[in-house]
Amino acid sequence: MRTFVMVSHTVPLEGEFSLSDLPGGAGRLDVLCRAANDAFLISHGIRPAVAFHFVIQDQLTISLWGGRLRHLNPDERSTGALLRQALRTAHDLPLGEERPSTPGITVRRMGLGGLLDDLRAAGNAPLVLDEAGAPLRGARLPERPAFLLSDHRNFTPAEEALLAALPRISVGPVVLQGHQCITLVHNELDLQEVG
Amino acid sequence: MRTFVMVSHTVPLEGEFSLSDLPGGAGRLDVLCRAANDAFLISHGIRPAVAFHFVIQDQLTISLWGGRLRHLNPDERSTGALLRQALRTAHDLPLGEERPSTPGITVRRMGLGGLLDDLRAAGNAPLVLDEAGAPLRGARLPERPAFLLSDHRNFTPAEEALLAALPRISVGPVVLQGHQCITLVHNELDLQEVG
Repeated sequence: MRTFVMVSHTVPLEGEFSLSDLPGGAGRLDVLCRAANDAFLISHGIRPAVAFHFVIQDQLTISLWGGRLRHLNPDERSTGALLRQALRTAHDLPLGEERPSTPGITVRRMGLGGLLDDLRAAGNAPLVLDEAGAPLRGARLPERPAFLLSDHRNFTPAEEALLAALPRISVGPVVLQGHQCITLVHNELDLQEVG
Repeated sequence: MRTFVMVSHTVPLEGEFSLSDLPGGAGRLDVLCRAANDAFLISHGIRPAVAFHFVIQDQLTISLWGGRLRHLNPDERSTGALLRQALRTAHDLPLGEERPSTPGITVRRMGLGGLLDDLRAAGNAPLVLDEAGAPLRGARLPERPAFLLSDHRNFTPAEEALLAALPRISVGPVVLQGHQCITLVHNELDLQEVG
């Protein structure tokens, strides 16, 4: 299982925005859509052994589960519709409860700290994708890695405090977009798996 | 200079489609938009030493030139608008002539064969991205590589005939989407450049 976590600082919690304005009114939801695409989709197929958690404004976690995920298409707009539906599903959701949205997508009233606890309890080993980290290529990675990255903004000081003790991995010498880092992580793991 | 060529089989030449339906009415223009994003855009910046040529239905070539390119944003919809404008600019364009569209984007009435001749004449060495090719990692690449890839469909037999003599490079053991292959090519070249 490969797990990714992206922290979003600007997507509106209420899910009230137009799919024609993902970079504007939707608070850079396009960044999250591309991340989901590259985490799950390959050429004409899906990676089933992937989970993706989007932490929205440290209040809500939208989780996509590869094995059960349906209706995920490569284009940003349709993924935006799935994530918007998840945001709307979370309306009035009590703290700590989980609620299903579309197939393979669930929402929880949970921030980054709670998610990290939850991931560790399930046996996942969190790592931060960071340009100052150790090289990804040839890295000895845990069996159930959970790669954390931020959206178009840096992690906040409060988030950095939660992540301070975690190992850090760098994909290369150029600072890339989040979805590009995810592609590089998958490729490294694919190559390590075939030896 | 790093050059990419993507062959599109389904984008409508006339540029008459809605930006809200890139996967449908626009003939999978979303595939081209993601390829442009990953060829040019890094985190909060652009790669200036990149050129990208989109061959549309073997009749039209839309070229994006990194050093002069303006208005390229990460989201698919805005890139779709740039490519639609280029298609419309090409209306009534005579064979072989070049016409500017938005800054850093030009159109020519030219198919894959003509583009390959043009690239070679300018000193570029074409290579095909192909899952059956030699491994990308550690490959000795030409100084001015031009990486060719297809859209969501395979190359046609006529296209394959044009490409038959070219070296082939594989990014890894999983068959990926085009934009993901571009990210992996850049990363390999980035790492080779820093040694």
